[in-house]
Amino acid sequence: MVSYSFLKGHGTENDFVLLPDHDGSVHGDLSAERVRALCDRRAGIGADGVLRVIRTSALDSEIEWGTSAVEPVETSLRTEWFMDYRNSDGSFSEMCGNGIRVFARHLVEEGLVPADEPVRIGTGAGVKTVTWTGDVWTVDMGVAQVLGETKVGLEGRSWPAVHVDLGNPHAVAMVDDLAEVGSLVEEPAYDEALFQEGVNVEFVVRRGLDHLAMRVHERGSGETRSCGTGACAAAVAAAAGEGPGRWRVDVPGGELEVSRDEAGHVFLTGPALIVARGTTDL
Amino acid sequence: MVSYSFLKGHGTENDFVLLPDHDGSVHGDLSAERVRALCDRRAGIGADGVLRVIRTSALDSEIEWGTSAVEPVETSLRTEWFMDYRNSDGSFSEMCGNGIRVFARHLVEEGLVPADEPVRIGTGAGVKTVTWTGDVWTVDMGVAQVLGETKVGLEGRSWPAVHVDLGNPHAVAMVDDLAEVGSLVEEPAYDEALFQEGVNVEFVVRRGLDHLAMRVHERGSGETRSCGTGACAAAVAAAAGEGPGRWRVDVPGGELEVSRDEAGHVFLTGPALIVARGTTDL
Repeated sequence: MVSYSFLKGHGTENDFVLLPDHDGSVHGDLSAERVRALCDRRAGIGADGVLRVIRTSALDSEIEWGTSAVEPVETSLRTEWFMDYRNSDGSFSEMCGNGIRVFARHLVEEGLVPADEPVRIGTGAGVKTVTWTGDVWTVDMGVAQVLGETKVGLEGRSWPAVHVDLGNPHAVAMVDDLAEVGSLVEEPAYDEALFQEGVNVEFVVRRGLDHLAMRVHERGSGETRSCGTGACAAAVAAAAGEGPGRWRVDVPGGELEVSRDEAGHVFLTGPALIVARGTTDL
Repeated sequence: MVSYSFLKGHGTENDFVLLPDHDGSVHGDLSAERVRALCDRRAGIGADGVLRVIRTSALDSEIEWGTSAVEPVETSLRTEWFMDYRNSDGSFSEMCGNGIRVFARHLVEEGLVPADEPVRIGTGAGVKTVTWTGDVWTVDMGVAQVLGETKVGLEGRSWPAVHVDLGNPHAVAMVDDLAEVGSLVEEPAYDEALFQEGVNVEFVVRRGLDHLAMRVHERGSGETRSCGTGACAAAVAAAAGEGPGRWRVDVPGGELEVSRDEAGHVFLTGPALIVARGTTDL
């Protein structure tokens, strides 16, 4: 069997296997089977997803760049590095707000990008920029779109919710107490005509003026320890008005900060950790 | 931070972090905090337990050898290597039927024991002997004791069960269909006067003359993908009489074989895999 390198890292306990594959020669067109084997929490290494570290020049097709209608990328603006993100079921995903911080940290630690500049990273949702101070990493998530009211339900209960789009769809429900959501094992009910591809549902409680706490049910994954775009959606939905602001968002796996600037760009700030590195033949 | 070596492996999806610490100088008295950090499935590497690989001469006390009343070990019979097993909560455990196969494979692969002899390994339950053929590893689990009838219950239902001791206590209930056990999220009810330290509960269905399938609820862990001593207990409880025999036991994480010889020794046979190796500073 052929061994290859991996690293394991996480951001607020949203965890990832990183696969260095700079010229694309190690993993070729990275099979869904290998991704599932790596992400298997008993028989594999275990993770919520895989982040392949690959040069954009080595991408075997333009498909990844074309999947997002949100921010199509001109060839002239493309970056040296591309975050090829796969969900634990092996499917490609455009973007991951927690994963990209870990990805950026890896690029900086390995000297793959200049250490004194913001890190520009290609993703299926366009080019994202990550900056950092010490151990705290910030990613520009782009502009969030608030698209109106909807409803979510759980075990016979129903809550009004705000529809927010951050490249992926969210329904944010304000609740009095996170405990009222119960075990959150069941997928919440939602407007299937509105969210034909499913929706991520955030249940959010206010803990202070600019301080929220949330639990999240991610489509296809169930309840998770953290969701970066979900934290941004929660802050945007809970904010009064559309102006700039700064919010602390507690998730089960830690603490995130969301801010919005005058131009409406949303920034996600949080930890990024690499906890292990080695080789595997999975 | 100081980095140290680890490996990750599993036997029928009962998974472990191995910590080479031959002379005890890397981890000292291995803190429960570090074990929990390593076993954390989101923020750490993730495992059901830690197997420290240490020379018996480096054990900092005789405590580990003294915890089992089942098979006290004379100093003269001690082995070169000791499997210092910790549960994911950091507590010491005497023995693990799936873990010791992975431990033995590691010793053989690294050339730490002669490759052409059975591997003798010290554990808190005495010295265990592991043999192998190709990728299949067999451990002599000692003599199982069948200690009478008891009962287990779940969600208002009740089943007769057999009390079996393999160094740790088991209650084995024969069922018609593993689905009737439901989600097995709740701890099964058991005779608390009889099992004052708790009990591992196996629900077992017959699939053929010498072929069983089981699900297991391990005390302190909940339902697991596999339990080596549980598979042995299931076979012993399902066997007619006390004579020799050979049983296939399907567990959610794979397939095990249990046999018993003329002398009453129970042998557990199954896979042992090392899937990753590297360094961590957890």
